[in-house]
Amino acid sequence: MALKTSLKLRLPYQVHSYAQTLQAFKFSTQENNDRSNYRKSIYKNVVGATFVGVASFALYRYLEDEKKVLAATEEITQSGNVKEGLPFYSLDEIRKHDSKEKKIWITYKQGVYDITEFIPKHPGGGEKIMMAAGGSVDPFWMIYGVHRNQDILNMLEQYRIGNLSEEESKISVQDMSDPYAFEPRRHPALQPRSLKPYNAEPPLKLLADNFITPTELFFVRNHLPVPEIDIATYEIEIEGVGLKPIKLNLEKLKKFKRHTVTAAVQCSGNRRSEMIEVKPVKGLSWGQAAIGNATWTGVRLRDVLLAAGLKEDPKGVEHIQFEGLDTDPSMNPYGASIPIEKALDPKGDVLLAFEMNGQPLTKDHGYPVRVVVPGVTGARNVKWLGKIIVSGKESDSHWQQNDYKGFSPSTDWDTVDFSSAPAIQELPVISAICDPIQNEKVKPVNGKIPIRGYAWSGGGRKIVRVDVTWDQGKTWSVATLEQEEAKHPHHWGWSLWKVEVPVPQNADKIEVWAKAVDSQYNSQPESFANIWNLRGVLSNAYHRVTVNIDKGKK
Amino acid sequence: MALKTSLKLRLPYQVHSYAQTLQAFKFSTQENNDRSNYRKSIYKNVVGATFVGVASFALYRYLEDEKKVLAATEEITQSGNVKEGLPFYSLDEIRKHDSKEKKIWITYKQGVYDITEFIPKHPGGGEKIMMAAGGSVDPFWMIYGVHRNQDILNMLEQYRIGNLSEEESKISVQDMSDPYAFEPRRHPALQPRSLKPYNAEPPLKLLADNFITPTELFFVRNHLPVPEIDIATYEIEIEGVGLKPIKLNLEKLKKFKRHTVTAAVQCSGNRRSEMIEVKPVKGLSWGQAAIGNATWTGVRLRDVLLAAGLKEDPKGVEHIQFEGLDTDPSMNPYGASIPIEKALDPKGDVLLAFEMNGQPLTKDHGYPVRVVVPGVTGARNVKWLGKIIVSGKESDSHWQQNDYKGFSPSTDWDTVDFSSAPAIQELPVISAICDPIQNEKVKPVNGKIPIRGYAWSGGGRKIVRVDVTWDQGKTWSVATLEQEEAKHPHHWGWSLWKVEVPVPQNADKIEVWAKAVDSQYNSQPESFANIWNLRGVLSNAYHRVTVNIDKGKK
Repeated sequence: MALKTSLKLRLPYQVHSYAQTLQAFKFSTQENNDRSNYRKSIYKNVVGATFVGVASFALYRYLEDEKKVLAATEEITQSGNVKEGLPFYSLDEIRKHDSKEKKIWITYKQGVYDITEFIPKHPGGGEKIMMAAGGSVDPFWMIYGVHRNQDILNMLEQYRIGNLSEEESKISVQDMSDPYAFEPRRHPALQPRSLKPYNAEPPLKLLADNFITPTELFFVRNHLPVPEIDIATYEIEIEGVGLKPIKLNLEKLKKFKRHTVTAAVQCSGNRRSEMIEVKPVKGLSWGQAAIGNATWTGVRLRDVLLAAGLKEDPKGVEHIQFEGLDTDPSMNPYGASIPIEKALDPKGDVLLAFEMNGQPLTKDHGYPVRVVVPGVTGARNVKWLGKIIVSGKESDSHWQQNDYKGFSPSTDWDTVDFSSAPAIQELPVISAICDPIQNEKVKPVNGKIPIRGYAWSGGGRKIVRVDVTWDQGKTWSVATLEQEEAKHPHHWGWSLWKVEVPVPQNADKIEVWAKAVDSQYNSQPESFANIWNLRGVLSNAYHRVTVNIDKGKK
Repeated sequence: MALKTSLKLRLPYQVHSYAQTLQAFKFSTQENNDRSNYRKSIYKNVVGATFVGVASFALYRYLEDEKKVLAATEEITQSGNVKEGLPFYSLDEIRKHDSKEKKIWITYKQGVYDITEFIPKHPGGGEKIMMAAGGSVDPFWMIYGVHRNQDILNMLEQYRIGNLSEEESKISVQDMSDPYAFEPRRHPALQPRSLKPYNAEPPLKLLADNFITPTELFFVRNHLPVPEIDIATYEIEIEGVGLKPIKLNLEKLKKFKRHTVTAAVQCSGNRRSEMIEVKPVKGLSWGQAAIGNATWTGVRLRDVLLAAGLKEDPKGVEHIQFEGLDTDPSMNPYGASIPIEKALDPKGDVLLAFEMNGQPLTKDHGYPVRVVVPGVTGARNVKWLGKIIVSGKESDSHWQQNDYKGFSPSTDWDTVDFSSAPAIQELPVISAICDPIQNEKVKPVNGKIPIRGYAWSGGGRKIVRVDVTWDQGKTWSVATLEQEEAKHPHHWGWSLWKVEVPVPQNADKIEVWAKAVDSQYNSQPESFANIWNLRGVLSNAYHRVTVNIDKGKK
């Protein structure tokens, strides 16, 4: 009951359906933005013939996705119903089964399940699912909406041992309102990969249009509900080894020297959908647009830490941990950490950012303050920053310890030992073709078609070359790059590239491949089979796109 | 004549044949080492049953290589002889042809050649070959011994326009003694890839035996003759933007704080012999052992530069240039440069090193002082350091501007624009199988065979995983790593790895592949076709080794 009470206290959300959200959709996201400026920036950045066409298509896709999600929700309502022939248990009885020794029981609606044997196999980590031990998974699944699909429910039914009465099943979820009720409105062009939590990417074809990705088209990767933050009482707590704890509100934070950095932020799972074609993985099926390039304005984490009393080369300090104000049903915050070397590097450019592309952060991107760790995977760029902890060890969050890590292609969920691999920090070199998109029909002009895309490497490595082939690697053309001047190894922004490829006479289609080379002369792996990993992260093999040739009259 | 005089002044070498060198061969390299210590280190590091066997084999291989080189020398003596029917020219006449406008003539022995059209195609760079314009190439080819092969001489004969009299042909090389006369003695296990300049690598099978590569088995990559240096007068000149020029002798240098760093040094062309199988390239045919791991002791370049008056973040300074005391026939020194960010990084660990593996540097490794730039390709680790120049621009040396750079697989010698690619600094992730070697016959023990090798990544990226497969990637085993503790991104040493792979019943042979992953989660490209480049550098695709299975009785 303590759990539910605190949920109610800290997440006082109203139920607010997606249908309502859609109905109310306008070009608007966040109360803190000046609407007129906002509209201007939209028009400046994204309106154009291409955009309007693609955005309409995207809106159609979005509605389709929404329909699928709603349909799936109906379909899965069969699970968790009373099953004839199985015994009924009381909540009191179920509560006793909360450890390996006493077996681990959970409930879902009116179903009772003994999941003792499943615990070590839980992709989200054994410790996460243990939070539901002896109780209901429903409040957790309201946060982790990804569970509400037929495959998972079918699997759960294999562990079915009994039923719960209808009254008792209601007790287990009473007093819970939708933690997602206060989600911001989003741009209709964003294509959701999951609604709760909200994860979405822009249409790939738009991505290479702007060197600076418009904020409203920047991919969104939320792990939990967007927290409702009162700026009047907002403070960042700073504590840890050798520090006297302090708190900084936004006004105090802004008194530090401001810096603006152009940096791409990418999800570890970008391009996962291509890796999935080798063999299924656990994770959202991202296309190639879970990456964006923005200017970030804020103050240096280094300056704040030194002002808080941290020394250069501090003894006993190895990591700087961050906690977001977004929390799970047990009030555990989203968390991550970065090595002290990166945090204190005078040229590491780690920011506590309050502006994105010259405007206050939007809710989806971490309003009022997020960490921006240039060159490092998105998961460490903690949004809605609540706390900074100076520590001798890494964050012990699920996402740092048991999630964003790379493994051998032969490591599966039965054999994985998350402690054997380092948490992903810097991401490897990657590129993608944005235009044309897969299977698009294109009419050559003077026997050629233009190809456009992006390329990026983590760790401040600049892209030095992008090679493109249209004949399976027999011939490679070097693309023209658009990139900022920035010194190695502090080149945080992405590069856009373009090249024209010749179309062989009478070809019905061609397959175009792109690969990038960074300033360390690392290049991409050729294919996904040998970099496959159970979480589908680090998916940076060559991007291969089939282009259908429009042979219509010129 | 000025050229020849200065050659005589600065390179007063005696002729001293390789046959004599071989006859005099003992376990000894350098006068400055204490012989007794030296022998002890040999015994401590490398003597063992395996070593003795392999070293004998290596000596045999060395003698074979030597025979081949001598045979080639005889074969090519036909080139440059008088050709009937062509006119005779005088040296005075030939000297007039020293520019594009007046045509560029050179002589080789008694041959006269108009190479105007060849200049832009010269792999060593147009500016290098222009040094011979209007004169003889013989003195240059005494330095760049690589030219003395039949392919090059046949190509030269295509440009033949006339003859030189026997007397005059002697004038053009008179007073020249062998610049290679004072080369140090080398360990017989080293396998030469070129004798003049001397380039050699140890037997691959030995390489994974020692985490610290014994100095006498460390690969040698010389671009020019080893200079004879008088330690009594030796000084390093330091000059450039914003500095009052200073000179430091070894005694003064050693007054700075000493640091020891474990760092692998690798040639940009390591593993070139595998890339050559796709398509020929220009460059020495290195196997997989043009890499070694050593401890380097010296003083920090950063400390020396700051003491010389350089400021942190100095204005107008972009690069630190180094010049060796090794020179070509025009007295141009070997040269290279590194970015100021690396040179001044307090954690960049760039050293002016005077010890390798706890002993004074040997002649082949740069005695008395070499630059060690951890994480950066060997070519920038300038040996026999003579001068440091603080500059607004890169070294304009051939090796910085027109040599060690990467290009697309479709870039050839007709289309290459060296200014379009950055000089290689940090090297990409690489690995190799050292034991067993290609086509070795191995008897499985309990159905398994052990595989050993090395892995390394430039830029201070630690190796986090090595994957090994014996079934074309269907199954991968994760190898056990031997590596030093060092923090990302300052992990300069290599990792040794080992793993046992199962041998399928009745298999006659298996093909083993290895690939490494570094702390930026970059992995190796699968094959050479798509990373091929005209200089054969950055050759870091999967290493694939065929192992023959010995099915003899157990």
